[in-house]
Amino acid sequence: MRALVTGAGGFAGKYLVRHLRERSDEVIGAGRAADGCDVVLDVNDYDSIQKALETARPDVVFHLAAQTFLPEATQHPMETYETNILGTARLLSALKSGTRIVFTSSAQVYGAGAPDRRALTEDLPLRPVEPYAASKAAAEHVCMAAFHTSGKECIIARAFNHIGPGQDTRFAIASFAQQLARIACGAQPPRIDVGNLEAERDFLDVRDVVQAYVTLGERGKAGEVYNVCSGVPRKVKELLRMLIVQAGVAVEVREDPQRMRSSEIPCFYGDNGKLRALGWKAQIPLEQSLRSIYDAAVAATATSAGASR
Amino acid sequence: MRALVTGAGGFAGKYLVRHLRERSDEVIGAGRAADGCDVVLDVNDYDSIQKALETARPDVVFHLAAQTFLPEATQHPMETYETNILGTARLLSALKSGTRIVFTSSAQVYGAGAPDRRALTEDLPLRPVEPYAASKAAAEHVCMAAFHTSGKECIIARAFNHIGPGQDTRFAIASFAQQLARIACGAQPPRIDVGNLEAERDFLDVRDVVQAYVTLGERGKAGEVYNVCSGVPRKVKELLRMLIVQAGVAVEVREDPQRMRSSEIPCFYGDNGKLRALGWKAQIPLEQSLRSIYDAAVAATATSAGASR
Repeated sequence: MRALVTGAGGFAGKYLVRHLRERSDEVIGAGRAADGCDVVLDVNDYDSIQKALETARPDVVFHLAAQTFLPEATQHPMETYETNILGTARLLSALKSGTRIVFTSSAQVYGAGAPDRRALTEDLPLRPVEPYAASKAAAEHVCMAAFHTSGKECIIARAFNHIGPGQDTRFAIASFAQQLARIACGAQPPRIDVGNLEAERDFLDVRDVVQAYVTLGERGKAGEVYNVCSGVPRKVKELLRMLIVQAGVAVEVREDPQRMRSSEIPCFYGDNGKLRALGWKAQIPLEQSLRSIYDAAVAATATSAGASR
Repeated sequence: MRALVTGAGGFAGKYLVRHLRERSDEVIGAGRAADGCDVVLDVNDYDSIQKALETARPDVVFHLAAQTFLPEATQHPMETYETNILGTARLLSALKSGTRIVFTSSAQVYGAGAPDRRALTEDLPLRPVEPYAASKAAAEHVCMAAFHTSGKECIIARAFNHIGPGQDTRFAIASFAQQLARIACGAQPPRIDVGNLEAERDFLDVRDVVQAYVTLGERGKAGEVYNVCSGVPRKVKELLRMLIVQAGVAVEVREDPQRMRSSEIPCFYGDNGKLRALGWKAQIPLEQSLRSIYDAAVAATATSAGASR
């Protein structure tokens, strides 16, 4: 396929571009000028969208560009709505008919989750409770309207938590790995600050996530929504324990109220049956995923220690 | 109450301002400069919002300003999203805490409606299928996010079809009344062009609609959604027949494919139990509503005939 990836400089974007190149797809990575992407694309600038589309002439657009960090979205709702909702609408309006688009939404749109600890299915009502989730739910509606009224071939990917090497350390698992790596090399006292460890979440390695996006780009049905998730709830505590074992260090775990979100939902995981029906399957076991995250954190710590010497 | 009404120059806005004045509430009508409102307010201009709020210092804001005509929204989705979604977000961000806001959404957010001819209830999933509906569903999410993260006291009114004297003749019932009035005074041959007459819809007189908004402004629960509707499905054909009887003219009814919407839903009506539980009740019987619509259409036709003479 010929693919255009927006947000190619972001966490999942980088992995997606790499994965498509490995498959020998033609891919243009689009992002902000500073990200070193193939073309510059700012979703708030229609001309830049048009130019990127003219350069890439894609069969499929993977639309990952967004304000993705939840607390920042809550602090700056207007900018988040502008980028995540209107940016998506602007991209859709510039798309030629026949171009497929995979829009990356978020499981946050489900809000408080399913009753009775059940897996979240795509047909549940959307009940976003903060601006990031609201922006993604809104952009889903924008996609569906474009599908129904203009025939735009939108496929919606509702992604749950992704993890993987290189993730921003504002996210929990990346933060744990970084802290443990610093402890292991003596750069931090043997104490780790954590948020709510009892929460159960659905973690999927970013390499399985981008594989799912490609599956949706190839075989997803336009106008349909697909959860992108492992389908298995895991306690955050369990992941931390696995990381501690891998680090091989003794640490004191300290709960930090600053890291607790106010309305934590105890159990939140998805049903991935629709995605699996397209032939996708997660490839990377959680243990292996955490191993590579920890190894990357050690490498990054060594690099930064070297740099500061 | 001290009220600020946005979109005060619009169809429902005018009725709402009049109704609040009749109740001796203090009310500031805000709208575009051309509408002859008390203050100028453009939801796409933050400064104008702030100024209007400073002038009105309202207890309750009734937010009616929006792009409301569905086919125009479909033609200009970007402008619709800008005004209806970001305009709402901008207004919310300017609101002082403690100010209540009634956001007027639309039953269009339900999309294809309920299965099995049932009345639509507020807990159903939102499935908008065109840009106007998408913009209203999105703005609802924006309101709920502002409620949950910033404590904004948002009450959502999901309005179904409103009818009443003075409505824009791009809407079906207003168009019927206008055509019949023109026929009655000899300004049009005795033939009336109509869309899908078999569709069943939920019609509520605009005076009952604004009464519902006031009820929600006074007693609606923040963070809750309320259908504003009659609760009774009526065939469009039935309303046309009642108007023809009132006009007392013999007419040929001709179906015009141009007036048929592509994805007409056969039966679409709401459950108004939540609203009635607040003490609201529709006051104006359908027959009386149609009588006043027809009388106003006759008066308007006479005026325009006079003007063109």
